[in-house]
Amino acid sequence: MTVRVMGVDPGLTRCGLAVVDVEPNRRATLVAVGVVGTPADQSLDKRLLKIAESVDIWLDAHAPAVLAVERVFSQLNVSTVMGTAQASGVVIVAAARRGIPVALHTPTEVKAAVTGNGQSDKTAVTKMVTKILRLSTAPTPADAADALALAITHAWRTGASSPAQLQSGSTGLTAAQRLWAEAEAKARRRR
Amino acid sequence: MTVRVMGVDPGLTRCGLAVVDVEPNRRATLVAVGVVGTPADQSLDKRLLKIAESVDIWLDAHAPAVLAVERVFSQLNVSTVMGTAQASGVVIVAAARRGIPVALHTPTEVKAAVTGNGQSDKTAVTKMVTKILRLSTAPTPADAADALALAITHAWRTGASSPAQLQSGSTGLTAAQRLWAEAEAKARRRR
Repeated sequence: MTVRVMGVDPGLTRCGLAVVDVEPNRRATLVAVGVVGTPADQSLDKRLLKIAESVDIWLDAHAPAVLAVERVFSQLNVSTVMGTAQASGVVIVAAARRGIPVALHTPTEVKAAVTGNGQSDKTAVTKMVTKILRLSTAPTPADAADALALAITHAWRTGASSPAQLQSGSTGLTAAQRLWAEAEAKARRRR
Repeated sequence: MTVRVMGVDPGLTRCGLAVVDVEPNRRATLVAVGVVGTPADQSLDKRLLKIAESVDIWLDAHAPAVLAVERVFSQLNVSTVMGTAQASGVVIVAAARRGIPVALHTPTEVKAAVTGNGQSDKTAVTKMVTKILRLSTAPTPADAADALALAITHAWRTGASSPAQLQSGSTGLTAAQRLWAEAEAKARRRR
């Protein structure tokens, strides 16, 4: 069964939003991608409200089965991390209000899932997302590509599109699925 | 004119909520105080949703003129700061959705405003809040007292209850108001 996953890369200045449909054979198709931005000179409440309203619109318009959000760490980027965490809280509640399950994935998990290497840079992630979704042009800005990568990662890592098949290990996997599973296992060992 | 201020001390485990009415002469009266708690073993989305729903109920029930929220810093308490920031984002959006202005105050500002010393401990803050609000018993837990202190601080610091009078310096202040203004100025110099 095809599963619709929404990915959000939270941030106050730029919040990446993406929706993809993922088939049981892992084939992922772009449904929507975008960025909601708020100016730094606006008050915090207005900025967070803009993000909340945008996520509300996206959730209602696309009705995803699950929302994947980047897990925020306090170690990274001290100057912006509080705003990022506040934005992520707002995004998570928007899904929770609708009974949509929320999954958190670390940047390393996302890079590993889409490129096979948890240490990849943003260019590599964008390139693989473009390829995976069979897009003619790369999604921009990086926040949009990250949101797409998050959605793909969630579907692939959890086997959301085919739980029974993917959770049973390599049994019943196609050759392509086996290659992905191996790449993921390799990436996991590397972390 | 009496101004109704809601104060929130954000947190995932315990979120302090308080509403006070503050008169132009700085006399503050308790309207409501409480704590919304969520168990640590619950999922993040459920915890944030519980906080969002509680704040929605409080804002609708008490219709404050302004919401005062503790400003979260990334330096403090790394293990809990991300959850605190996420909770604060949720609280801020709840007010923004209703067009209620949001003010952020640091813990130092709050301590200085209610005790005259920005370095006071929690016991001193609770003691002064109890006295200021003329309560027969101290509000517990500390998160509830902190939320009350935040609301009082906002009204007193901004002169929210009497903008013309309090923003004009010491002119027109009563003896008690002058004492408070002096204590505040002293606390500000000390920081």
